[in-house]
Amino acid sequence: MTTLQVQADESVHKPDAKLYPLLSSINSPEDLRKLPVDALGGVCVDIRRFLIDSLSSNPGHFASSMGAVELTVALHYVFNTPYDRIVWDVGHQAYGHKLLTGRAERFHTNRKLGGLSGFPNPDESEYDTFTAGHASNSISAALGMAAASALKKEEPPRHVVAVIGDASISGGLAFEGLNNAANTNSNLLIILNDNDMSIDRNVGSLNSYLAHLTASKSYNNFRYKLAKLARRIGLVTESGKGRIQRFNNSLKSLITKEQNIFEGLNIRYFGPFDGHDLPRIIRVLNDIKDIPGPRLLHLRTVKGKGFAPAENDPAPWHAPGCFDPESGERKGEADDKHNPKFQNVFGSTLKELALKNDRIVGITAAMSSGTSMSMVQEVLPDRVFDVGISEGHAVTFAGGLAKEGMLPFVAIYSAFIQRAYDNIIHDVAVQSLPVTFCIDRAGLVGEDGVTHHGVLDLAYMRAIPGMLVAAPRDADTLRSLLYTAQLPERKGAWAIRYPRGRGRCENPDAPLTPIAIGKGEQLREGTDVSVLSIGAIASEVKKGLDLAARRGISASHYDMIFLKPLDEEILRKVAGAGKPIVTVEDGTVEGGLGGAVLEWLSANGYTIPVTRIGVPDAFVPQGKVPQLFKLCGMDAEAIADAVVKAGKEGVGK
Amino acid sequence: MTTLQVQADESVHKPDAKLYPLLSSINSPEDLRKLPVDALGGVCVDIRRFLIDSLSSNPGHFASSMGAVELTVALHYVFNTPYDRIVWDVGHQAYGHKLLTGRAERFHTNRKLGGLSGFPNPDESEYDTFTAGHASNSISAALGMAAASALKKEEPPRHVVAVIGDASISGGLAFEGLNNAANTNSNLLIILNDNDMSIDRNVGSLNSYLAHLTASKSYNNFRYKLAKLARRIGLVTESGKGRIQRFNNSLKSLITKEQNIFEGLNIRYFGPFDGHDLPRIIRVLNDIKDIPGPRLLHLRTVKGKGFAPAENDPAPWHAPGCFDPESGERKGEADDKHNPKFQNVFGSTLKELALKNDRIVGITAAMSSGTSMSMVQEVLPDRVFDVGISEGHAVTFAGGLAKEGMLPFVAIYSAFIQRAYDNIIHDVAVQSLPVTFCIDRAGLVGEDGVTHHGVLDLAYMRAIPGMLVAAPRDADTLRSLLYTAQLPERKGAWAIRYPRGRGRCENPDAPLTPIAIGKGEQLREGTDVSVLSIGAIASEVKKGLDLAARRGISASHYDMIFLKPLDEEILRKVAGAGKPIVTVEDGTVEGGLGGAVLEWLSANGYTIPVTRIGVPDAFVPQGKVPQLFKLCGMDAEAIADAVVKAGKEGVGK
Repeated sequence: MTTLQVQADESVHKPDAKLYPLLSSINSPEDLRKLPVDALGGVCVDIRRFLIDSLSSNPGHFASSMGAVELTVALHYVFNTPYDRIVWDVGHQAYGHKLLTGRAERFHTNRKLGGLSGFPNPDESEYDTFTAGHASNSISAALGMAAASALKKEEPPRHVVAVIGDASISGGLAFEGLNNAANTNSNLLIILNDNDMSIDRNVGSLNSYLAHLTASKSYNNFRYKLAKLARRIGLVTESGKGRIQRFNNSLKSLITKEQNIFEGLNIRYFGPFDGHDLPRIIRVLNDIKDIPGPRLLHLRTVKGKGFAPAENDPAPWHAPGCFDPESGERKGEADDKHNPKFQNVFGSTLKELALKNDRIVGITAAMSSGTSMSMVQEVLPDRVFDVGISEGHAVTFAGGLAKEGMLPFVAIYSAFIQRAYDNIIHDVAVQSLPVTFCIDRAGLVGEDGVTHHGVLDLAYMRAIPGMLVAAPRDADTLRSLLYTAQLPERKGAWAIRYPRGRGRCENPDAPLTPIAIGKGEQLREGTDVSVLSIGAIASEVKKGLDLAARRGISASHYDMIFLKPLDEEILRKVAGAGKPIVTVEDGTVEGGLGGAVLEWLSANGYTIPVTRIGVPDAFVPQGKVPQLFKLCGMDAEAIADAVVKAGKEGVGK
Repeated sequence: MTTLQVQADESVHKPDAKLYPLLSSINSPEDLRKLPVDALGGVCVDIRRFLIDSLSSNPGHFASSMGAVELTVALHYVFNTPYDRIVWDVGHQAYGHKLLTGRAERFHTNRKLGGLSGFPNPDESEYDTFTAGHASNSISAALGMAAASALKKEEPPRHVVAVIGDASISGGLAFEGLNNAANTNSNLLIILNDNDMSIDRNVGSLNSYLAHLTASKSYNNFRYKLAKLARRIGLVTESGKGRIQRFNNSLKSLITKEQNIFEGLNIRYFGPFDGHDLPRIIRVLNDIKDIPGPRLLHLRTVKGKGFAPAENDPAPWHAPGCFDPESGERKGEADDKHNPKFQNVFGSTLKELALKNDRIVGITAAMSSGTSMSMVQEVLPDRVFDVGISEGHAVTFAGGLAKEGMLPFVAIYSAFIQRAYDNIIHDVAVQSLPVTFCIDRAGLVGEDGVTHHGVLDLAYMRAIPGMLVAAPRDADTLRSLLYTAQLPERKGAWAIRYPRGRGRCENPDAPLTPIAIGKGEQLREGTDVSVLSIGAIASEVKKGLDLAARRGISASHYDMIFLKPLDEEILRKVAGAGKPIVTVEDGTVEGGLGGAVLEWLSANGYTIPVTRIGVPDAFVPQGKVPQLFKLCGMDAEAIADAVVKAGKEGVGK
């Protein structure tokens, strides 16, 4: 089995027929399609009410789904799902889709262990046609489905619909999909769900206007001055707070022109239409559904539509956590100086460093607030580049900056930086350029589940020659790593990976100090077993060794900090001690720390038993991180068990 | 040191002043810039003559550089290189650039061990500003350089020029770069070197014309009929033989319109101009070099320009091998039924299978002839999709096809499929879709060097849960693997990787037979040492064990065939025998077969010495494959040494 199996949470809460009179009567899109068009507005009301009620207490992605309610209803009304295929890009907007496809009564399990996935998931429902979570894949996947249908000569023709947002469509993968679709006769409808989060709409006409000016030096100066002015007076929003960034201004400017980029790519373009005008969307969908060949329908929607607090300030309402369904008051987490979020440690430390070292630049790919790169952006806007959803470009762009003497810090989530693997190798590592990859959300991320866990990074980064691979166990170590990464003597490509969540910070106000490259640290003395760990799972190890000690086994504990280069001094000491070794990491056990230790021992002539603890060789579902640690056999109890077993067996056979 | 060092070949052959009167006097672009404009035509003549003379006997990439001669001369004439930066995309076109930047006298070492790199290489020259080899990275890298220059407020302003071909610019990375560049004021000039290899120029106006027709069902039928007609009468070339494919028709159609895609993206567009009209290019470059902000100059060039045989049939002249400099006769390799190229075994086998199994589809990313997917394309054009330079899309598109019941075989070179790593994980493996990755050019590829070796694939593929990873030792095994991959019972994602070059085929005409999943094969009996290998390096192992036998050590040899899942029966047998183990693979030793074997032994309680032979943890330069095997310590002699040493030491310490 490729995905770890958990007991499904089959508990059922039927939607209350008094609160949601129409939604409660819909068990599948078949039921929806039996309703008259003028009843559909009521369905939308029900869906919104249900989402507010449910998500206010069981948090998830909110504003995107609120904005896509009419679109969702229209798609299931017009198309013959599940025979016709809807491919949701990313999937934040797909909660309404889940409610209409028989999952309302299980929606209280959303994002929980054994519950509904927060994203479309083909394992969960035949209505979820393709994996979602990583942006920009919908057009390519849908094109493949449409091509398959054509090859199979299916009758009636199977419609395939990709629903993609204005941020996702700026990704290179989406462009590749568009470019390929344009030369096929595939029965593919692309819905551009443009929720206007990127820029103020006025900029489109501003750019149109400017496009007609003639080229001259003074024109070009004028152009940039105007753009600057536009920003100052608020025509262009440039805040980093979760808002989709200005990078796709240019793409957007095209959309409103008659001769637009999609028509240019030979894709028939329809729109823009109001994405909340349900009768009209239904009419348009019916009009265009049978036109052969690829086409694109451009809908303008409002993120958070139907809930005033979210409409007014959609960024924090993307994933608001718990909130009061009446007042819209969000229940935020308290900050804790001694137990801060890793992302904030990154942001505040890089800010501190960048203010002093003007070679430092920050780069992120539409994750400015998620990585807290926004903290640097606020004080040094010219030194931070949010390049939008384009991880590959982010890394190659960083390579160019580094080649010319800058020190780029590229902050991207672990699961998403997989998309830049070749760029890391070809455009950074081959040239030993001093780019630091600050890999957030590494390890098990919890409720976002299978597509978002960042558990392969240790293994795939280790394979790259010359790559330094580090993982701090706590906030203090992250601070030291970042400090060290910008010292003049620093060389080559670095990966520093740290988890979602919080880490201990003993000395939040202490001056930053360097850390020795390739040097780990002994955290505990012990006599029976040697435990080597890397990263923030050190805290779980600590608990595990306390448990083991109570069971009579004394273990030493070393935080390796660096997977590459390994601390050979520690390894020699541990190997020389001749005690069984246990390795612990929050990454795959296939080729991670455990493998690296075994390779070192073997290369150095040691034959010592090694127990590897980490994420097993399987995809991991969603759940709270402690639940997943347990599921993966890497919680404190499992560590204690392994240590006790190793200690009792010793090194003999 | 991140790259393995070799003795530089410093031998010097001064260009003959009689044959190349102008070129021989140019030691750097400074010398070029001293010449009057009307002397530059002579420089172009010299460069072409020199390339013909040199490459006819020391083969390399030919037609691209021939087509870029005027462009190259103009760039170094107008711009103040190396202060100004030229970033060549891919780099096939950069030989003229090498000749003008002080490397003519070493050009006879091109692509040889210790010689000049066949691609721009920053380690080789300050004029080579960024790594090239993988397509589409130039805009992103150049944008980073321009951003760095702006941040450093360099005076005089440093110009950065990206030179990109019409095929490369269709890659998603290039689009991401363009999209980001459009919103900066960077001093970036993009040269689109459009060598017209993609489609006949007439199609542009055809598409323009069609764009003005109104939408209707009959229009859409008409549109595709017209496109078909255009293809039949030769307006659109669709041959798979190395030609850039029709996928970017649509992109091309835009270029000739006044309102084009680049202007749409807010990038000032100039062109198209004749890329061989040197005085005019120089004039235009001088006109536009100081316009601030990103701009694009579109040049039309002829691939192979100046050598009639190449102009007439540019595809085979991309990398023609040795040829007669007068007649243009190419000196091809003889085919050998019992020692065929792996790529042809792939192509012919997939053709045979696809003719019988209509679920099979083929996908490649502008490598149709290079992977021999063209063999399938010739007989089943509707079942093969060459999606152009877009590896990510190729894989996600395959995921969509597989989700709807097809059996996609995706043929991409190992070094390039790195770019689709996330797509492999997120769009295929998470869903356990039956996509087969046919990874050509795996291992050490020889003369193409550091950017083209495919030595990480075993390690990074092994990390993916559920991925089957196989490597055939010979052509017969590849045939069986492909056959097995399309049987009804086949499940999940498969990677089958095989090298550039040839493999033994005992039974080219035998009926195809299945192979047991996860089962290796014993190739030799022996008593002192157990050798486990994977892939085509088995032939090197065989030679090594013959040598070891002569030195008194008898080794058994197992071809694992599968890295994942490992053959546990073999491992138990080998571990049970208690003899030292030697693993051999043509991939990185960090987390490859050796690591996997160590992990299995450790997990199963064995402590046996293992010697790992493979590509060391460093980037590997260019050279003939046997030279590189020796350099990496993985040739027959090195294997023999390791086996003899292991055999003499035994399992005790």
